[in-house]
Amino acid sequence: MVQEVIGEVLVRIRPNEEERAFIEGLMREIENIARGRAEELGLDIKPYFVGSLAKDTYLAGDHDVDLFMAFPLDTPLEELRGKGLELGKAIAERLDSYEVAYAEHPYVRARYKGVKVDIVPCYDVDSWKDVRTAVDRSILHTKWVLENLHGRNDDVRLLKRFLKGINAYGSEIYVRGFSGYLAEILIIKYGSFLDVLEKADFMLRQKIIDPAGWLKSEPEIAMKTIKREAEGDKPLIVIDPVDPRRNVAANLGWEKFGRFYFKAHQFLEEPLVEFFFPTESTGENYLGELRRKRTHLVTLLFKKPQLVDDLILPQLERSARGFEKALRRENFRVLGWDYGYVGEEAFIMLELDRIVREKITIKPGPEFFTERGWDFYRKNERVWLIGKRLYAEKRVKESIVDVIVELLEKNQVALGKQVREFIHSADILVDYVPGELKREAYLFLSRKKWNLKG
Amino acid sequence: MVQEVIGEVLVRIRPNEEERAFIEGLMREIENIARGRAEELGLDIKPYFVGSLAKDTYLAGDHDVDLFMAFPLDTPLEELRGKGLELGKAIAERLDSYEVAYAEHPYVRARYKGVKVDIVPCYDVDSWKDVRTAVDRSILHTKWVLENLHGRNDDVRLLKRFLKGINAYGSEIYVRGFSGYLAEILIIKYGSFLDVLEKADFMLRQKIIDPAGWLKSEPEIAMKTIKREAEGDKPLIVIDPVDPRRNVAANLGWEKFGRFYFKAHQFLEEPLVEFFFPTESTGENYLGELRRKRTHLVTLLFKKPQLVDDLILPQLERSARGFEKALRRENFRVLGWDYGYVGEEAFIMLELDRIVREKITIKPGPEFFTERGWDFYRKNERVWLIGKRLYAEKRVKESIVDVIVELLEKNQVALGKQVREFIHSADILVDYVPGELKREAYLFLSRKKWNLKG
Repeated sequence: MVQEVIGEVLVRIRPNEEERAFIEGLMREIENIARGRAEELGLDIKPYFVGSLAKDTYLAGDHDVDLFMAFPLDTPLEELRGKGLELGKAIAERLDSYEVAYAEHPYVRARYKGVKVDIVPCYDVDSWKDVRTAVDRSILHTKWVLENLHGRNDDVRLLKRFLKGINAYGSEIYVRGFSGYLAEILIIKYGSFLDVLEKADFMLRQKIIDPAGWLKSEPEIAMKTIKREAEGDKPLIVIDPVDPRRNVAANLGWEKFGRFYFKAHQFLEEPLVEFFFPTESTGENYLGELRRKRTHLVTLLFKKPQLVDDLILPQLERSARGFEKALRRENFRVLGWDYGYVGEEAFIMLELDRIVREKITIKPGPEFFTERGWDFYRKNERVWLIGKRLYAEKRVKESIVDVIVELLEKNQVALGKQVREFIHSADILVDYVPGELKREAYLFLSRKKWNLKG
Repeated sequence: MVQEVIGEVLVRIRPNEEERAFIEGLMREIENIARGRAEELGLDIKPYFVGSLAKDTYLAGDHDVDLFMAFPLDTPLEELRGKGLELGKAIAERLDSYEVAYAEHPYVRARYKGVKVDIVPCYDVDSWKDVRTAVDRSILHTKWVLENLHGRNDDVRLLKRFLKGINAYGSEIYVRGFSGYLAEILIIKYGSFLDVLEKADFMLRQKIIDPAGWLKSEPEIAMKTIKREAEGDKPLIVIDPVDPRRNVAANLGWEKFGRFYFKAHQFLEEPLVEFFFPTESTGENYLGELRRKRTHLVTLLFKKPQLVDDLILPQLERSARGFEKALRRENFRVLGWDYGYVGEEAFIMLELDRIVREKITIKPGPEFFTERGWDFYRKNERVWLIGKRLYAEKRVKESIVDVIVELLEKNQVALGKQVREFIHSADILVDYVPGELKREAYLFLSRKKWNLKG
């Protein structure tokens, strides 16, 4: 039964011979271009392929090329940045199109035959002791996986697709899920896809995973890593096989680990293809949810800023939290929030207990016998004491739209810096969303988006 | 201008010759009965009149007789209680009617010619060092006031009437205002009614009033009193002229002192008879207040327990606070509450932000990887994680009446012990009160009851 499901999934995620041949050809072609261009520029670099293509752990149809141009260790950092970018552009000119992207240092993001090709300069390190920039470790990761995977590539594919299916894949800061490298390590450590699922509880309790035995060979550094990560209350501490200073699971949050924990359990109880390829819910309707819960949906709809996800998503989250806090101060209770974008439209959704509040609020004032007490007493019409503190009525805006507009005008909502101006000119929709957001609204209000029993 | 107002008030509060003669006659008559009955019972007691009649500081028409039967200091306490009650009854039999009331020890509460007569046994003390029961000091208080008032009796009357008018009179625990004795001390200390009003801010800042100079004659005991009361954060510390261990203002709360503070200021700015005799607001309507504020009024109406105010009022207050807390947990916000009784009907009024809530609430659960986490996960239909904690939706009652009924059924409201059963069978009225409570509802919702600006 499990094997049937796994077989059915493997057919869909294992690249076939045609795809393999295409990818192999593409890589050889790009490598040749890279070598040729480097020679022309008189650069002493080695090209490496890293990432899931290089490790043969990519999912069918999901093949981005990561070409790393490794400079000798004695290259000054400035030179690496300059020459690296120059070389990247020179290679990309032979491909279909490209743009310059920015991480720790600039790199070239090209496209070739429909495939994304990142061309990244780095140092040619042999050991973690040489690591100088954040990307240098990638070459070591690739080597380690190739040396240790011993043919369990399909198990990695299954685990990655499972994590994607249950929405726990991706180590980006706005995802906080499992990285591909972490999935590979878990397969290497526990043996197979099913073994990893069965170990969900065990690994949480064991907490520390040390596949390369750093605790023996570099106890001091490894213990320091463990201490730091334990203080950060991480669900897992996986000491990087290529660098004892690093927790591979540093970006894994409790929520995504928890999803894995429960979904692994569910899958072992009742294995279904849907864990890997969830069916999109349709036909359900967010207005029904609002009626069922007797809550309200307020949506801020605005133009999506032209920023990468790494920037925009954390700022939208920060802004949603800002609304929750600001509205709570105004006596609206936010039962939940969500954010995201669809096409060119970004949104923040807030589920509220009500959309009209009382017309007055009770404002606490200072102690009565102070100068400020007398001011408060003079300024307000209805003033009374509770203990030694003065209180007064204050007339306030009633409707949620007026309240939000006023909060924004007075800058009383903590918003992400680069999304602020967009939010300030947002449309505010109450208990209604346009067609393209209906599904998002339903998944949010029904909590299907996060429901562990989804 | 001030003098005109004071003159007008004095005409209404100073007892006229007829009233004085009636009271004098009444007191002599009762004293004779008391002496005669004591002699018949072979008791060696001295009758004393105490309180405002004895001190000639009573308000016209407001004349309760306090007759204290002072036993020799060597009388055992049990004998004083027994013989005291016996004597009280013997005296009262010659009056119109009586009942036995209970304080620290039992005493007789009689009526005679339309006047209330309390007959209280006590010890015949000369000094605070002899004081054995709470009432023994009264004789000393009366003596001290008579010796020190020097004809300023009308000033005491004015101050008492003023305090009554602004709702700050009475040292009962459920009032926390000024006692008559405290009013007398303030007149003796500061000179006149207007002087006391002008000193409102001064006395608060000086804090300690020591009219009998205990800080010199008994510094240790007086300092101990001051320390204790200062720790209790009392607005005033008035060392009792007859007992350095006692703060005469011990029961004065900040709210009532604050009322005095602002009203004294207002009166000096614009003296009006209304401060002494406030006009009852009429014609105003609580439903208008509800519309103005867009809030809701929930009234619990129940049979008044047959208890004295000292017992019932604090318990009603405790119960009102109990509802505030319990309803806040249920996501109803209580903007204010009030309690009291009219005739045989007691009530608790709650001003709420709404009377219908959402149909679901979000229930926080345990950490997901625990036994209880699994239980929670299994029991609930929609479960999700925030951090490592599980959350779920819970279906709840929507209407305020259902919520209150359920809270009472589950004993989740902290209620006063002797009012609990009455509240449990209360009628729950929403945005409506019967005719006899309309005025109470208006005074509460408009905050007129506490408004410092009248």
